[in-house]
Amino acid sequence: MATTGPATTGQTPTGLFITLEGGDGSGKSTQARLLAEWLGEQGRTVLRTREPGGTVVGVEIREIVLHHTGEVSPRAEALLYAADRAQHIATAVRPALARGEVVVQDRYLDSSVAYQGAGRVLGSAEIRDLSLWAAEGLLPELTILLDLDETAARGRLDAANKRFDRLEAEKGDFHRRVRAAFLDLARAEPDRFLVVDAERPVDDIAALIRARVAPLL
Amino acid sequence: MATTGPATTGQTPTGLFITLEGGDGSGKSTQARLLAEWLGEQGRTVLRTREPGGTVVGVEIREIVLHHTGEVSPRAEALLYAADRAQHIATAVRPALARGEVVVQDRYLDSSVAYQGAGRVLGSAEIRDLSLWAAEGLLPELTILLDLDETAARGRLDAANKRFDRLEAEKGDFHRRVRAAFLDLARAEPDRFLVVDAERPVDDIAALIRARVAPLL
Repeated sequence: MATTGPATTGQTPTGLFITLEGGDGSGKSTQARLLAEWLGEQGRTVLRTREPGGTVVGVEIREIVLHHTGEVSPRAEALLYAADRAQHIATAVRPALARGEVVVQDRYLDSSVAYQGAGRVLGSAEIRDLSLWAAEGLLPELTILLDLDETAARGRLDAANKRFDRLEAEKGDFHRRVRAAFLDLARAEPDRFLVVDAERPVDDIAALIRARVAPLL
Repeated sequence: MATTGPATTGQTPTGLFITLEGGDGSGKSTQARLLAEWLGEQGRTVLRTREPGGTVVGVEIREIVLHHTGEVSPRAEALLYAADRAQHIATAVRPALARGEVVVQDRYLDSSVAYQGAGRVLGSAEIRDLSLWAAEGLLPELTILLDLDETAARGRLDAANKRFDRLEAEKGDFHRRVRAAFLDLARAEPDRFLVVDAERPVDDIAALIRARVAPLL
């Protein structure tokens, strides 16, 4: 899994962990793809991945969480997401970082805190603790928050005529609370977060992201 | 879900939570069945249940943990068991206890600590904390430990010609460490535990269990 490092240093490039966060419909997948393409052009090997569902075990967990027909208790749901995280970080992300790759990941810790902690009945602090235990403390160097108000997000999803899963089907108020929780998280860790207005043109957003990532390479 | 309480008090009987612990082949299922039959004869409604796998979600989780072909990371495995626990306690055990029933459960907290904590790479204290978070602090009134040395347990499983699952297929040394961990747990909480030599005749063991349960009814 050879990578081409910066020619000026001659050293093995170190791994870089970047996450994308935001509500459904905010454009995370598009921006992850554009960022990965650009990183490849810079000579870096990129692992594009996601949570939940980044591993075989994670796909099975995702099936339980999103498509179970009965009640899943709030703590069971939080623990299933944490299990997916533990498996994904241990078997996919850490090995890639150890090889010097750039990991571009759709959703991580902050989604858990925003959706489970602020959006539901569990406390943000205990959800964060649980996630960090699962991940043995791994935090991203950079988290890109694609911020979109709830009405715009809903319009995008309706336009795409996507099948709504359980989380998407919940009420607008829930989405507003999740958005506020994401913004709170970004304010608490300004060095880690880049907050971008997701209603801007796709290419503008991609350029803002590249400008922030370039010095980290 | 009416139950017949002790005639002398005229009160609604309170729920009672009893767990059975011990290695595979120690006779937990047999003793759970005999205990449940006797409790029924005493006029109590009994929920017989198990972890992992006591709920629909739990069965799906059990499939992932026991029959996944690749690597499941230690923290992912611990979190999956905790998720099963959270779902099972919230949706099955607590409602039964609230109705005044007796819950007789095959494996709980102590199995997690013994198998995951002592038997593997994670610390006992953090596994216990994780389990208690999952269960919102619920502990059994009584835990019956069916203690059996590893050679006898292996002989029983071989005789039954059972298909070995992943845990059962691990080495004898692992089973010895699990047994020692169970005994340590019993010594630390003598009021909660009843330790029984699982090589005694089935009927003798059942009688010892009934004698300990009777005053709790």
